[in-house]
Amino acid sequence: MDKIILDKINNTGDVKKIPENELPLLSQEIRDFLVEKLSVTGGHLASNLGTVELTLALHRSLDLPKDKIVWDVGHQCYTHKILTGRKNDFDNLRKFGGISGFPKKSESDTDCFDTGHSSNSISAGLGMVKARDLKGEDYTVVSVIGDGALTGGMAYEALNNAAKLETNFIIILNDNNMSISESIGGMSKYLGHIRTMDGYLNLKADVYKQLSGQTRVIEKIRHVKNNFKQFFVPGMLFENLGITYLGPIDGHNEALLEHEIQEAKKVKKAVIIHVLTKKGRGYEPAEKHPSRFHGAEPFNIENGIPAHHRKVAAYQDIFSTVMWKLGERDPRVCAITAAMADGTGLKRFRNKFPDRFFDVGISEEHAVTFAAGLAEGGMRPVFAVYSTFLQRAYDQIIEDVCLQNLPVILAIDRAGLVGSDGETHQGIFDLSYLSSMPNMHILAPKNKWELSDMLKFAVNFDGPIAIRYPRGEAYAGLVDWRAPIEMGKAEPIFEEGGVLLLAVGSMVKTAVMVREILTAEGIPCSLTNARFVKPIDEEYILSVADKHPLIVTMEENVLSGGFGEKVRSLLGNNRINTRIMNVGIPDQFVTHGSPETLMSMLGIDEKSIAQKIKAELNAMEGNR
Amino acid sequence: MDKIILDKINNTGDVKKIPENELPLLSQEIRDFLVEKLSVTGGHLASNLGTVELTLALHRSLDLPKDKIVWDVGHQCYTHKILTGRKNDFDNLRKFGGISGFPKKSESDTDCFDTGHSSNSISAGLGMVKARDLKGEDYTVVSVIGDGALTGGMAYEALNNAAKLETNFIIILNDNNMSISESIGGMSKYLGHIRTMDGYLNLKADVYKQLSGQTRVIEKIRHVKNNFKQFFVPGMLFENLGITYLGPIDGHNEALLEHEIQEAKKVKKAVIIHVLTKKGRGYEPAEKHPSRFHGAEPFNIENGIPAHHRKVAAYQDIFSTVMWKLGERDPRVCAITAAMADGTGLKRFRNKFPDRFFDVGISEEHAVTFAAGLAEGGMRPVFAVYSTFLQRAYDQIIEDVCLQNLPVILAIDRAGLVGSDGETHQGIFDLSYLSSMPNMHILAPKNKWELSDMLKFAVNFDGPIAIRYPRGEAYAGLVDWRAPIEMGKAEPIFEEGGVLLLAVGSMVKTAVMVREILTAEGIPCSLTNARFVKPIDEEYILSVADKHPLIVTMEENVLSGGFGEKVRSLLGNNRINTRIMNVGIPDQFVTHGSPETLMSMLGIDEKSIAQKIKAELNAMEGNR
Repeated sequence: MDKIILDKINNTGDVKKIPENELPLLSQEIRDFLVEKLSVTGGHLASNLGTVELTLALHRSLDLPKDKIVWDVGHQCYTHKILTGRKNDFDNLRKFGGISGFPKKSESDTDCFDTGHSSNSISAGLGMVKARDLKGEDYTVVSVIGDGALTGGMAYEALNNAAKLETNFIIILNDNNMSISESIGGMSKYLGHIRTMDGYLNLKADVYKQLSGQTRVIEKIRHVKNNFKQFFVPGMLFENLGITYLGPIDGHNEALLEHEIQEAKKVKKAVIIHVLTKKGRGYEPAEKHPSRFHGAEPFNIENGIPAHHRKVAAYQDIFSTVMWKLGERDPRVCAITAAMADGTGLKRFRNKFPDRFFDVGISEEHAVTFAAGLAEGGMRPVFAVYSTFLQRAYDQIIEDVCLQNLPVILAIDRAGLVGSDGETHQGIFDLSYLSSMPNMHILAPKNKWELSDMLKFAVNFDGPIAIRYPRGEAYAGLVDWRAPIEMGKAEPIFEEGGVLLLAVGSMVKTAVMVREILTAEGIPCSLTNARFVKPIDEEYILSVADKHPLIVTMEENVLSGGFGEKVRSLLGNNRINTRIMNVGIPDQFVTHGSPETLMSMLGIDEKSIAQKIKAELNAMEGNR
Repeated sequence: MDKIILDKINNTGDVKKIPENELPLLSQEIRDFLVEKLSVTGGHLASNLGTVELTLALHRSLDLPKDKIVWDVGHQCYTHKILTGRKNDFDNLRKFGGISGFPKKSESDTDCFDTGHSSNSISAGLGMVKARDLKGEDYTVVSVIGDGALTGGMAYEALNNAAKLETNFIIILNDNNMSISESIGGMSKYLGHIRTMDGYLNLKADVYKQLSGQTRVIEKIRHVKNNFKQFFVPGMLFENLGITYLGPIDGHNEALLEHEIQEAKKVKKAVIIHVLTKKGRGYEPAEKHPSRFHGAEPFNIENGIPAHHRKVAAYQDIFSTVMWKLGERDPRVCAITAAMADGTGLKRFRNKFPDRFFDVGISEEHAVTFAAGLAEGGMRPVFAVYSTFLQRAYDQIIEDVCLQNLPVILAIDRAGLVGSDGETHQGIFDLSYLSSMPNMHILAPKNKWELSDMLKFAVNFDGPIAIRYPRGEAYAGLVDWRAPIEMGKAEPIFEEGGVLLLAVGSMVKTAVMVREILTAEGIPCSLTNARFVKPIDEEYILSVADKHPLIVTMEENVLSGGFGEKVRSLLGNNRINTRIMNVGIPDQFVTHGSPETLMSMLGIDEKSIAQKIKAELNAMEGNR
């Protein structure tokens, strides 16, 4: 389709030259552009369709890059990227070497803060505001945060601190009445009350009607307080905290948005503009199924149906089925998600056992301690969470779960390389941080059946336990290896002497391929599935160490603090000089791209590993 | 002094038998008891003096251990311990083998959740409530949280979730108008508004007066809204979130407290009782200086003056002085604390540079990202924080500091074994978790001068950097070793071949003593100060490895993921077979007790280490 207005926008600031009457068409063209591009590449469609007018208004009201916009989470920044010279990069969105789906300072000086995790934008914005004032500089800082992100406690910590401000700081509350999947909790209900008001004037009239002619005003007010107090001043909760509140306003009315931003700029305090938007706006399938179009795969524009049908089971499907069975079998089993019921596969459990299902919103800290409370009370909570987001609850896992040795089950999804979401979403630290926690137990399944077995094992285990598994397709190989899970026991798969591949979880599949390469070249090769990262199977490893000249540990985790280092220490402490090679992710952040591409880039794909092993064997030969 | 009422209290439930008219005397006796005992042992005096009546009321209204009290942070649980059969253990409070200063399930079945870190009590309590209901059990759950702890975001996450509850859950907001040092932010101001009201009846009259006779009520209300809305319904902010609010009530009126708790029990929702208490109540020095009596050392009862005068400088004193100098020298330097200005030594900086000093409240997550924002804006923020509390910001350090490679300085205080606070406060994980973060740099000073040098180095370094140092007395030995800090360079101190002690920070002092033991026995011994835990000085270590038959790494941190494992991997990856011994904290939580006692218990004091080294040398001799 022609994009006659969008064609005029090539650089930052170009949008200011567009006459006001052409803006509706521009909005339409941007929506068409997003739908067209994302139908091919995939990406965060719904959130971006919802923020087109808001982004236009911000860019027309502000002076970028001098002024700063901090995008909370960042998956709503596509229009911002379009308006800042990156329009032509959308064919490579979220592909290796292409632009990121999140703000990246390395891409543009109009991206002032790299985001990806939720609820941090107000803190970062407040820091910039303070820096600006201390340096005597003059620019506007705007943090854009969704109502979903507002369920994260750190946003509240930041609001609490922003309350003291005596200088301008604009917070835009982009309220689309949902976190990633649905509204959660008290704040959401509160915002809902504001949304349902018919604007200020009607409201005033209503309140006036309620009050006038009443003699015993207070008593009356007390009676109707549950309605009244909400209607009295919209945003009173924020005002109570000390934040000036403007709104609510229609987030698809560009002119109104510009006007409110200009008004907000005049406030010498922290000021919230409460903006009502619709996720998926303008593309019917996304309006109807905003959750499905949150992080969308490529789709058919006509009907919104995914272009590629996944035929194989994902780990999330297995998890979904097993949780449902466990819920049936054991009334103690509860499921917790932090706004990721769809992504983690908990929808079936939710539908079947609504009383034992808890979506706590984007609140990983609360989720873990809440799970600890459930466990203390005699339940068996399973917190299904993406590896990268569990980082938020590091302290709570130590203090509230491990220290008290409570039977909380962490089902760590998206562990390892996640692909197109990039740096902020790679799940590559969990084995390290969990390993250092006393009382923790860590498992990783080699294939889909093992995930099932491990979950059953975990629910019957009386202590802190984590199972980590990757995003997407579940490995269906090694079907014949299904020995019962035993605490701390590894699973030898091929025992042929030579090089011993000691692989964790997803890397067992890679190890199978490495072994094929090596054995094809006449190099004998054993393969063991570690199963447990903590406790590691010391007895087994010590018993086989001297039967293998080289042990290769393999894990989809950073090397620092990971499984490999534990194996190396074990042998060292036992004065065993068997050569060890640790395969894992080196000390760097990992960009976006397909997991295969990334593994090859990092030298942890089967070919690179086989090559390294051969080089090591040669060096050992030379050393003899 | 005689304790005629307190003498009658020996077991859980005894307090219920005390006639109402004897309760004031009992309160007084408990206060006397606390002052007498803590003047000898030290401990959290001010918070416990403030909660005597509240604890009496809870114990008289509830049925322990069936009913559950979750004490947020837990340092206000002394009266609870007195009432539950632990009165006679107070002479060994916080001593090795004695009772803990925090709730401990292992001590009593009336302690239902081990706490120590802040703001988690509502989450844990909510989990217990859900477990209770799912199991069809019938007991009352009460979470007791201070206004300081309410600045932590996770408390808000929990309130947000508690809002949906349709069953009883009592939250007691123990509002003493301060977090550990002072009131912070919007919530605190809001609570302050409620505190200043003259009770409900006066309030109603006031509001009535404002309203009655006004024809244009709304306009009037709008005008006075800043006062009005606060006064209209106390606790409206909580009610807006969906939590029933009762209060504010006098937290030193036991009868009133009992009455409110009984009222609260009838509510089929989450209900907050807002209780106003005074920290240090009843002991004048503590009332006047609640901050000094937060975690008090032994003191003279007559005047409250510390019994032992510290003569040597603590690391916190050094930090205080250097920060003050750096603030003077470099206008970019800012200081951030999460409610620990006193403890960390930032008071001088605050007084001298109030504009560049930020006490964010108990909000470590916000603190780190706020620091990132400041750094992005061109400042050099120093976040001074206890190691154990920095755990709360694990994710923010990765995402908002390291990923963006921002010059944020983490001044990590109380690193290593902290002593009497025990498990929840040991700072023994930081080297591990920070090591696995790409772009992070980690330093640890051997003595007081090196802390100073490292801080200066850090402020001039352009990237994420952490300096970790222990609680208390700063080592003043090795005065002649003060080579300039160079990125990633270790500092060889004694180079005599033989065993190489490669020690981190506080362990350099221990290493000096180990070396004395060994050399006295004719065992040659070198000693190097690692200085950098990340990046480790690979060049140096590789260059000296083959000159030493045994390298002993020493760190006051868990072994898993720590410095020792890095050194071992370095040598292993370089095919060097030098024997390594890693000295550090084994995989366990560490109880309370003096650091010396704990080090000996863990086998990481100088004698144990020297012994292990000799054993290792003997084994190596035997292996030849």
